[in-house]
Parts: sequence; C-alpha cells; structure tokens
Amino acid sequence: MFVDAYDVVFNADSKNILQKFLEHYPGKQLLFGAEPFCWPDQTLAPDYPIVEFGKRFLNSGLFMGYGPQVHKILTLKSVEDKDDDQLYYTMIYLDEKLRKELNMDLDSMSKIFQNLNGVIEDVELQFKEDGTPEAYNAAYNTKPLIVHGNGPSKSHLNYLGNYLGNRWNSQLGCRTCDQEGAKEQTEFPLIGLNLFISKPVPFIEEVLQKVSEFDYPKNRIALYIYNNQPFSIKNIQDFLKDHGKSYYTKRIINGVTEIGERQARNEAIDWCKQRDTEFAFFMDGDAYFTEPTVIRDLIHYSKSYDVGIISPMVGQPGKLFTNFWGAIAANGYYARSEDYMAIVKGNRVGYWNVPFVTSALLMSKEKLGTMSGAYTYNKNLDPDMSLCQFARDNGHFMYINNEKYFGYLIVSDEFSETVTEGKWHPEMWQIFENRELWEARYIHPGYHKIMEPDHIIDQACPDVYDYPLMSERFCEELIEEMEGFGRWSDGSNNDKRLAGGYENVPTRDIHMNQVGFERQWLYFLDTYVRPVQEKTFIGYYHQPVESNMMFVVRYKPEEQASLRPHHDASTFSIDIALNKKGRDYEGGGVRYVRYNCTVEADEVGYAMMFPGRLTHLHEGLATTKGTRYIMVSFINP
Amino acid sequence: MFVDAYDVVFNADSKNILQKFLEHYPGKQLLFGAEPFCWPDQTLAPDYPIVEFGKRFLNSGLFMGYGPQVHKILTLKSVEDKDDDQLYYTMIYLDEKLRKELNMDLDSMSKIFQNLNGVIEDVELQFKEDGTPEAYNAAYNTKPLIVHGNGPSKSHLNYLGNYLGNRWNSQLGCRTCDQEGAKEQTEFPLIGLNLFISKPVPFIEEVLQKVSEFDYPKNRIALYIYNNQPFSIKNIQDFLKDHGKSYYTKRIINGVTEIGERQARNEAIDWCKQRDTEFAFFMDGDAYFTEPTVIRDLIHYSKSYDVGIISPMVGQPGKLFTNFWGAIAANGYYARSEDYMAIVKGNRVGYWNVPFVTSALLMSKEKLGTMSGAYTYNKNLDPDMSLCQFARDNGHFMYINNEKYFGYLIVSDEFSETVTEGKWHPEMWQIFENRELWEARYIHPGYHKIMEPDHIIDQACPDVYDYPLMSERFCEELIEEMEGFGRWSDGSNNDKRLAGGYENVPTRDIHMNQVGFERQWLYFLDTYVRPVQEKTFIGYYHQPVESNMMFVVRYKPEEQASLRPHHDASTFSIDIALNKKGRDYEGGGVRYVRYNCTVEADEVGYAMMFPGRLTHLHEGLATTKGTRYIMVSFINP
Repeated sequence: MFVDAYDVVFNADSKNILQKFLEHYPGKQLLFGAEPFCWPDQTLAPDYPIVEFGKRFLNSGLFMGYGPQVHKILTLKSVEDKDDDQLYYTMIYLDEKLRKELNMDLDSMSKIFQNLNGVIEDVELQFKEDGTPEAYNAAYNTKPLIVHGNGPSKSHLNYLGNYLGNRWNSQLGCRTCDQEGAKEQTEFPLIGLNLFISKPVPFIEEVLQKVSEFDYPKNRIALYIYNNQPFSIKNIQDFLKDHGKSYYTKRIINGVTEIGERQARNEAIDWCKQRDTEFAFFMDGDAYFTEPTVIRDLIHYSKSYDVGIISPMVGQPGKLFTNFWGAIAANGYYARSEDYMAIVKGNRVGYWNVPFVTSALLMSKEKLGTMSGAYTYNKNLDPDMSLCQFARDNGHFMYINNEKYFGYLIVSDEFSETVTEGKWHPEMWQIFENRELWEARYIHPGYHKIMEPDHIIDQACPDVYDYPLMSERFCEELIEEMEGFGRWSDGSNNDKRLAGGYENVPTRDIHMNQVGFERQWLYFLDTYVRPVQEKTFIGYYHQPVESNMMFVVRYKPEEQASLRPHHDASTFSIDIALNKKGRDYEGGGVRYVRYNCTVEADEVGYAMMFPGRLTHLHEGLATTKGTRYIMVSFINP
Repeated sequence: MFVDAYDVVFNADSKNILQKFLEHYPGKQLLFGAEPFCWPDQTLAPDYPIVEFGKRFLNSGLFMGYGPQVHKILTLKSVEDKDDDQLYYTMIYLDEKLRKELNMDLDSMSKIFQNLNGVIEDVELQFKEDGTPEAYNAAYNTKPLIVHGNGPSKSHLNYLGNYLGNRWNSQLGCRTCDQEGAKEQTEFPLIGLNLFISKPVPFIEEVLQKVSEFDYPKNRIALYIYNNQPFSIKNIQDFLKDHGKSYYTKRIINGVTEIGERQARNEAIDWCKQRDTEFAFFMDGDAYFTEPTVIRDLIHYSKSYDVGIISPMVGQPGKLFTNFWGAIAANGYYARSEDYMAIVKGNRVGYWNVPFVTSALLMSKEKLGTMSGAYTYNKNLDPDMSLCQFARDNGHFMYINNEKYFGYLIVSDEFSETVTEGKWHPEMWQIFENRELWEARYIHPGYHKIMEPDHIIDQACPDVYDYPLMSERFCEELIEEMEGFGRWSDGSNNDKRLAGGYENVPTRDIHMNQVGFERQWLYFLDTYVRPVQEKTFIGYYHQPVESNMMFVVRYKPEEQASLRPHHDASTFSIDIALNKKGRDYEGGGVRYVRYNCTVEADEVGYAMMFPGRLTHLHEGLATTKGTRYIMVSFINP
C-alpha cells in the first residue's frame, strides 16, 4: 500500500484493510483511490472508462495491491523527480491493455480509500456503538478506512483527524488527552508573555491582576506589553509599579504611540525569538484567565501532544462566542463546524485542530521561529486572521484546548461608547456585559455568605434587615460619579424629575435616571436584592422588581442634615450606606418610630432593607459633621 | 293713640313714641300712618295732597294725636258698625278745611308708624349696638316704632314679631325663653301621640325604639299609628308586641288599607279630640327623636309661651333641610327667610313664629279643637301644607322651637329604590344617607372605645391588630345577604370578576361589586377603618382608601376548608369574622408564617388588620366543621 504522508489519516489496521480489499475486490490485483476531478490533465477525461456508480478519476495519493503488480507498475516506465506521479499512474490506467494485465481497478465508491477534495459534504463523522469514530460516505453508504485531505480539503481532514484513528471516542472521550494539565516542576525555561490591548476593554485592572497571579516565575518571563488605549494607561502603570521589576526583562509600549497593533505583534514575535524563549504566550486584553496555571498547562499540553501552537478555549460567559473557529468557509471566514457547540459547551473535551484561534495562544520555540511577519502576511485581514492564514497556508496546525476551564472573554463590544460618555468609572455600567467581573468588583464579599441556604440574616429592627451588599469600591466610585455629575436637587418640594412634580419629603439627591444608571440598577436589584428579599420576606415574589425611585442622598449639617419621619412610596426599600461613620461623618442612622428602634446603618456597603409603607415610619437622624451619602431604592409593588 | 289690636307690634314705649312725635311733627295735632295703596276707594287717589317724599295714602290702623283733636275726629260724623273706618278717616283727611282745622298729617316716611303691606321689602330687622332689635325702613332711612301687618303682610310681621318688642336681643338672645325645657312633674295629663308612616322610610325600627323611650307614662298616652308601608309592617308589629299594652288606648292602622294618609290625619285629630287629650303630638316616621323628653318639653314650652302649636326643630344631619319654613312665597310655597340659616345652625335660639312646620308638632287642646278637617282644607296641597295653610288663614300661629336638640330627620329620598331592589336588609346600604343610624345599627359598640385617644390597640401578632369593628347584627345580615344572593365563585383560578381574569389563591367568595355594595363599603372603610389604620400604623395617610378586592369568603370542610400561605394584593387587609366559633363552625384562624403566630380571629365583628404584602405571609387554617364566613378587604396603596 502507498499513501501520501502529510495529509492522510488511517482509521483501520492492516488486517481490516486487507479483509475489506479481499471482500470487495476479489480477483483485483491493483486498487487506486478515486476522485471527482480529472487531474492534472483534464483533456484525458474522455479516455477514462465509464463507471456505473461512483467517482471515475484516478487519485494516486492512496493505492494498494499485490507485490508483483505493485513492483511492476513502479518500474514500468522511467520517471523524473519533477514529473507528476498522478499523471504517471493515470497513463498506465488509461492503457487498457496494461490495466487488464495488471488487473487494475478504482475504489470509485470509497469502500477503502476516501479522497476528500470535492466531496467533503459527503463525508461525515460517525461513531460505532462502542464509540469508535468512523468516516461515513453518505453518497455511497460506505465507510472508508483511509482518508486523504487532497487539495483544499485539508481543513476538513483536520476536523476528521480530531476523531479518526481512535483519537476521540464518543463513549470514552479523548484517547490521548491528559486533563490534569501542568505537573509539578522545578525548572522553568524562559518564556515570552505578550499582552496586547488594542481596543477599549473594561476590567483591564482585573485582567492584569490575573496576569500577575500566573503560576510561573516572573524572573523567567520576558514581558511584552502593547497598549494603545488611553483608558488603560493607568492600569498598566499600576501593574508595572507593583510587578514590573519582577520580570526577567520587558518591553512596554503604553499609551499614544506610532507603533500600530500589527507592527507591534510582529515585533513581539521577533522580540521573543531574539530572547530565545522556549515558548511564547500571546494574549489580548479581553482574555481573562481565572486559571493561574494556564501557561504551564499549555506548555504541558504542547509537549505532551507534540503540538506547536495551542490556544486555551475562552468564550463570553453564557454565549457561544469563543476564541476559535471549528471550520472555515471557502471565503476564509468563519463557518460553524458540526462539533463547535459540543466543544464550546464541554460535551466534547480535548485538543482540537482548528483553522482559527485568537485572543490567546502559546507557540513553541520551533513554531515561533517560522512566524516572523505572520501578522502582515495578509494586510487585508485583521492581524489575528492574518496569522492563522499564514499558519494554515504553511501547514502549522493550530489547536484549541478545552480540557480545563481557563477563564473567559470580557465583552467589550459596547464599551467604547460608555468610555466616551464621560464616566469616571465606566465599569460600573458593565453589569449586563460582564456580570462576573462586575460582581467581583462591586458586590460585597460578604454577600455570598448571607445567601448560603443555612444562613439566617439578622433583623436590626423588627422586619428590618441590614446585610452586606455592595463593595467599598462600589460605594466610593458611586460617590465619585455623583459628585462628578454634581447636579444635586435643591431639597425643595418641587421636583421636576418626578411624574407628579412634587416630593413630599425632599432630600438633596441625584436620581439614577439622571446619570443613565437606571436600567443597570434595576437589573442589579433584581439579580442581587430580590433573592435576599425572597429569602427574608418569604413567599413574596415579584420578578423583575420594579422601581422608579432610585437615588443617592447627601446629608450634611450645612445643607440638609436629617429627614423627618415618613413612609416610602414602596413595598420595600433598601438604603445602602456609602461612606464611613467616624471617618467621613458623624451622626446619621435611621429610627423606626413605631418600634422605637434605631439602626446605625453605618457599615459601608451594607443595605438596610425594610417595608416601605404602613408599618415602618422612619426618620433620617441628623448628620452632625461631615457628609453622609446613602443610596436609596424604592421597590414596588 | 289708636292701633289695630291683632296685627300690630310695638317696639317702643309711650315716652319714646311721644318724644319722636314732638321732634318730627312739631305743631301737628293729629298723625296717621301712611301706605302705598289708596284703599278702600281707589277713585279718591287724585284728591290726595301731593307728597314730596314718602307714602301718600292714609291708613287708619295706626294714628295718634292730642286729646281734643282725637275726640273731635272720632265724633265728627256718625258711623255705622259695618262702615269702613279707613274710609271714614280718609274723607276727613281729604277735606282740606277739616285737615287744616285738625292740623292733620300723614307719617309718610314711617318715622313712627310702619304699615307693611306693599313695602315688606323695605322693612328690615336691625339690631342696635346693645343688641336691641329695631325695624329699619331702608327706603326712607327711618326706624319706625310701631309695625302693622296690614293686609297680606302678616307673615312678614310674624317674622319681625319674633324679634321686635325686645323679644330677641342679638347680644342676649331670646328674652322670653326657657331653654331648660320640661320640669319635674308628677301629674301627666292624657295626651295623644299620632305616628304616620306614609312613605318608605329606613330605620323605622330605631324610630319606634325612640318612641318607646319617650319620657311620658304610656298609660297617659292615646296612641294612634298609621302605616301604609309594607316594609314597616313587621316593625310596627314588633313594637306593639313589646309596648302595645302599655298605652292608655290605641288605634292602629298597619299595612294595606283603604284609609288614605290625608283621611287618617284628619281622623287622628278627631280621635284625640274625642278622647279629650290635653295635648296631641303628631309625628312622621322620618322624625327620629333622640331627646326622650321631647313631648314634655313641647308641652312645657306651649304652656310657658302660651303658644298652641309648637314644633320641635329637626333637620337632616349636616344639611339645611329641616321641618319648617322661615318665610313663604306669594305662591304659598317655600321661601328662605333672612334668619333661616341662623336658626337651623343654632346661632339664633328660641321659638319662632313661622308659616310652615311639618314632620312633628304639638297642639294644645284649644288648637286641636279648631283643626278638624285641616288636612283636607286644600286638597291640592300635601296634607301638611294643607294644615299649615288652614292655620295661617285662621290666625293660628305655628312655632318652631330650637331651644334643645331633639333629634333629626331620617333621609328617605332614595330609600324606595333600595327597598325594591330585593335586598333583605336595605338599611345596610344606607351608610351615605343615614350615617348616624347606620353606625348605631352596624358598628360594633366597642369600636368607639378603641378610638379613644388614650386607648392602645393590642397586637395579636406582630403588626397585626384585631379589634371590634362591626356589630353582630351587621355580620348576621351580611351573611343573609350573601346566602340570599347565592352566586358563590367556584374556587378555581379563573375568575371573570377580576381585571386579569386570574386569581392565584382562589376562595369561595362573593365580591361586593356583585351585590352593589362596593361604593358603600369603600366609604365605610374610609370612615371607620382608615382612622384605626392611622392610629395604629402611624404616619401613613391615604385618603380616601382604595380597594378593588372586597369580598365575603365561605369556608366549609366539604367545599373549601382552608387557604394555603399567600400574600394579599394590598398594602393592608382586614378580615372580619362574621360568625361564631363553637356555635357555627370549628377550626379556622389565620397563621402568619414568618412570625409563626396564629390569630384565632373568632370574635364576631372583630376585624383583623395586617400588612398585606412582603412581611405577613399568611394561611387560612382549616375550618373543620360547619361554615365559617369572613369579610375580606384589600386596601391599597
């Protein structure tokens, strides 16, 4: 048997192949694979014998036969090094006398040999009952044993190759994987770590925090950072101040620069090559790695699987958008593969030869050596697409790995709009796009404890709960946003912001709809406050919560120090203490008149939750010094 | 001086009259009053001397002069008994020679003499600084001392006569009154008590109760009852069963009868006359006397003031409608007098000669003797108007007395509609028209105690109040109305009576809007429940209360025994227990899940008031035997 070496996958052993040959081609002595194209000389097509069913033309990438006949065909004519092998065999096949003498045939219905070019639609992946993968030719209802990615069908071969040859079993999963990832190690080769921030991305601070926590000695890392986003400059500076000196070496491009992203990415490849790094890790600012061993894992996989380019799968939480393509369309852009969903959802786990990866990838020293200028390979494409095209065109396989949960992609689609709207802390508005990061930054660390099923939340006064809700950071940033905005109400009864134009118990305040934070705050209330309400005020369900009064109140002695006893226009209200008694102000607190019970309400980020109407007449006690801020939400019905 | 006797009022003594005569008519020796009509012979008008300012024609009802001249004019000519006195004096006055000889003049500008006929609009009542009443002639800016109600001006004279002659002083009030009313007495003359129910009147039961409580020995009362209203037959029967035998004698016409109201009223006069009663009291079914001494008071006033017809003032509560007219129009119907409001409101207190009284009046034996047939005197008028016209035409003064608060008039205007709508207890719907009586019948006697300022209402569970609200009678009647109506819901989630068509926690119930009791119940809630809410859940004000869920629930084991834990669609709710545990049912009660607290809620007429949302998840515990009824109201916001 002869097969091409670099674009062929076996899905059977010699015994099975021989058995099938003897069964389907009794008496034949030489069998070639078939294909739908007459190549390299189309003018020969009419000379081919008619085939009743199946492909008519010879492909020389796969053939088999008895020893004497194979020896004969190989020695029949003289052939030059640059001659076309397929033309050589074709001419023999078209010589009817020789064909009969050699007892030659074509495997027209792919009973053994599957040449993919022109028929990738016909060839599907299937699994036997025991989970063993097999190729299935749906056109001829056959199960070919050897698959050849001839011509432009190599991407489909890569896909099939992720499974065939017993690489992945539908019952047993990946047969060659090592899901445990990185092992203990004492020696750390020098690696490159290349970070690119080339678009507005929120939560860069958190991304850098995770980078600083990577489980790899910083003195064995050559650090390359490229940031051309003004909003992130300070984050980079802070990161470098804390960690810059720990790295083996570094090159930092931070802020307004004449070096473009594409140029910088090429430069990073060469910069790592020059430093002779064993591996180079490239990541974009929107790749948020919760797994600190991500680089060590990838190095481990790269070595274990002998793959030179490997990318950790990351996706936008709850969405199907990830950093790889399962297939590629004829025009070079995204196509969905049959297994994309299964890989994204983790129903198929392993490492997957794919036509496109982005956001983060690890390259071995060997691959790095071949990649110079890959980002400018096709300037009509985005830099990452240019790199992948270069890799595909040059036979460098790219693997996406989903053996572990490494982290996720930050959603940055609409962030550029928010940044330019003159917000001081635009991440505060990112609750919809990046809820995990928003929660980590802005929800009080103690919140999760109170939501544990067995935890009973204490009552500060009858039916009044005071519990940790917002982080100190949120409280500080909210105050900064409010004071930055600055348009506090005048504390009079006339309030144009309200539907009725009249506020019976006026405060000095700013409403969330004045700063475009209403939609976000409602979602927050529904997501974080409603569960506490349902846990405490049991049996009461209203989803989503409704509120049209959400505002930050400012109390200070020289302006408005207190609020007379009143009810809220709400079913229940939450008042969140935004700053610190003793440090920022003196006095304050809320007194519930009917119960003659006072809640100090002075723990930053704690929410005091209480029934708004009827039972809980309450007054805001005087702030005697400094300024006290609270965030008030009236929740209905 | 000569004055007519029966239609003249003096407002000065002889000294003052003489002083004014000498001051204004120096040298004159004979002065006659003047009037605007030339009477009895209009043809003489041209013969009258021209008067520059004032009335030109002589009236002989009032005149004065020196002795010789008066003697001379009285003896100047012979005169027959039937001759007209005015014509006699007129002829002398028109004889220029005699006029000058007698030095005669007319008091044309009413400096002393005021003849009212034709000029009642000019003559007002005024009070001096010390409160003394005086007549004021606005046409001539004079203050006549003697007022003559000649011709048809007698009603106006009666009005002036209520004040003039120092009868009523604006500083000191009534100068001849005795506001204390009836004195202790041991001898009780036989009197007649005549009750007429000749239109649909609610609360006859209460009227009869008050009659039974009159502070006059029943064995000294001849009782005459006329009732032609089917709705009141049972009330009369019950009254007679309890008290009928106590009366001296009685005649009862109760129910369908051929005797008309007018005929019966005449009959009653004669029936009393025949029994030689010292006084006869006539009252209609809508006169509700809260003062048990009313008859004795009137007898006392009648004797003290020597007035034969006296009526206790009663009016519809909070309205200006009463049982008398202060004045009468030329057409014989109602006219408002200048003092009507002051009398009705009690700003002028006393006994008042008025042209019309109704609903209740006392007649002395003497007057009774003159009144036979008075109700048929003018059959074109209502019987009471006929009687008064008879009295006016025959010079019988009628007095209204407002020296005491005797009671009030029941409003019956719209009652006939309610009675015919097939209600079992139509008074239940009378909260708007007759709130006092409604309250007395239907509000729990303990309600007023809990509303006392110092009374603290206990909490049955946290923020749950259980207090007396409805009378047992209300509860019984409401159940009868509900079972009479009978269209209980089927207890399913689908409820066409609701806006959304869906009830999450269905009961077997009847809504108040199904029995036309919604408007009444809302008013009840606002009037009686809201004050309790404001007293208990302090600081919370919403007036009027709003509710669109008001219904009676029926629990019984074989239908629906209980209600699973739920919240109400209300700010607060009240559940009123309508029947009696142990007697009517077993089980029941409400458990507040969050407080693990149960309220038995088994005191008939007690309302359990509690916050509807959020805090007070509650369940209706199973009624294990019999039938339990509760009245539920959801109050918002």
